Amino acid sequence: MPKKPKHKIEVCFSPHDFDLFKTEFELIVVIDALRATSAICAAFQNGIKSLIPVSTIEEAMVYKEKGYLVGAERNGQLVEGFDFGNSPYSYLNPKLKGETVVLSTTNGTKSINIAKQSENATVVIGSFLNLDHLSTWLSKQDKNILCLCSGWKDKFNLEDTICAGAITTQLLETGKFYSDEDSSVAAKYLFLSAKDNIFGYLKSSSHRRRLKKLNLNNDIKYCLNPNTAPVIPILKGDEIVELKDF
Amino acid sequence: MPKKPKHKIEVCFSPHDFDLFKTEFELIVVIDALRATSAICAAFQNGIKSLIPVSTIEEAMVYKEKGYLVGAERNGQLVEGFDFGNSPYSYLNPKLKGETVVLSTTNGTKSINIAKQSENATVVIGSFLNLDHLSTWLSKQDKNILCLCSGWKDKFNLEDTICAGAITTQLLETGKFYSDEDSSVAAKYLFLSAKDNIFGYLKSSSHRRRLKKLNLNNDIKYCLNPNTAPVIPILKGDEIVELKDF
Repeated sequence: MPKKPKHKIEVCFSPHDFDLFKTEFELIVVIDALRATSAICAAFQNGIKSLIPVSTIEEAMVYKEKGYLVGAERNGQLVEGFDFGNSPYSYLNPKLKGETVVLSTTNGTKSINIAKQSENATVVIGSFLNLDHLSTWLSKQDKNILCLCSGWKDKFNLEDTICAGAITTQLLETGKFYSDEDSSVAAKYLFLSAKDNIFGYLKSSSHRRRLKKLNLNNDIKYCLNPNTAPVIPILKGDEIVELKDF
Repeated sequence: MPKKPKHKIEVCFSPHDFDLFKTEFELIVVIDALRATSAICAAFQNGIKSLIPVSTIEEAMVYKEKGYLVGAERNGQLVEGFDFGNSPYSYLNPKLKGETVVLSTTNGTKSINIAKQSENATVVIGSFLNLDHLSTWLSKQDKNILCLCSGWKDKFNLEDTICAGAITTQLLETGKFYSDEDSSVAAKYLFLSAKDNIFGYLKSSSHRRRLKKLNLNNDIKYCLNPNTAPVIPILKGDEIVELKDF
């Protein structure tokens, strides 16, 4: 019988369930595929210096008043008074190169800050945009890894789960990881069913319907297009920076 | 454009998430396919009079001391000192006909008692054993319906989700219901992938591995065999009884 791999890769469907998982993992991948973590990957690919995720609009406003560039989104829309929302297109602006950006979103930045509370865990940012690059890096870490899906207002969502399933599938294929949880098995199954046409597969998902109403179909297509931003955004203290030279 | 159906059918993956759903539903289907709700369906098919679900071993012991027939299971195994665990085979004993049985299990009875706290909601018991009969009855109720999966110690599990997906699929096919939540979409997708070989599909699930170690493969096969117990167990006060004459 082959030896069981040493480390596990598991999927937590929402920040609401994180308390059931948090003590077992040394490396947490936060995923908010539509759109926060995709926007973060796009921003680093565009050369920003760092990104400060904040949970509340009030915190975001304090940074705005200090002169920072600040993105803020709630319920899929830009919050009035801020520079941009969480459309990845906003983060491709050449003016952002070398800058520090502050971001607050409905789900994604909240889950980054929840993951941060897990002592001694490294927190990185995952999306379809950095899928292969991130999975390759993860496979080289000698750690138990949790994909933390941001969900929608604490509930399960399909797009983050499929992205987590894609990462899980890649790591299991290396033979260096195992999954014990049914959530990870389901994420893998859902990814395998979806992978040939993720955009089509998500047509009945709640958030795609929500964003479609807001005329954000182009954003969705951008966020589901894999490997356009081969970066590894990593949390250092209160800031996300790009991990280089590894 | 066709009119949106009036009522919804949704899936909640675990009692841990029930607070996100509980206020919106008038009818709750509790599912613990391996094995509590399957055992309950088998027991009513076998003609028991009623079943009292209790959350703790201490409560179960009080009933035992009063002379009741009491089943108690923790972590897949019968608890010492009780009459049986939650194997459906234990509930096929002809001696149980006409009796009141008390049951406490790791997940199932806990979720029945959580569902009970939802004011004004009717609580019924679902499993593969009563799948078609229950779905037909549900489709005639003019209510918003939630499938509450029992999961495993508050976490998502695959077998309850697939059973919930089967019920959801049947109700959506009537055209009288809609689903808004991604959890319901995922449950439906997982059921559709699994339906031709549910036993095989679950081979990597955590609970099947757990029960296999305990030599309970026959129990699993029994619980996954649909429509062997066309009953509708329904909660009335603190007791589950069989709904008849509807």
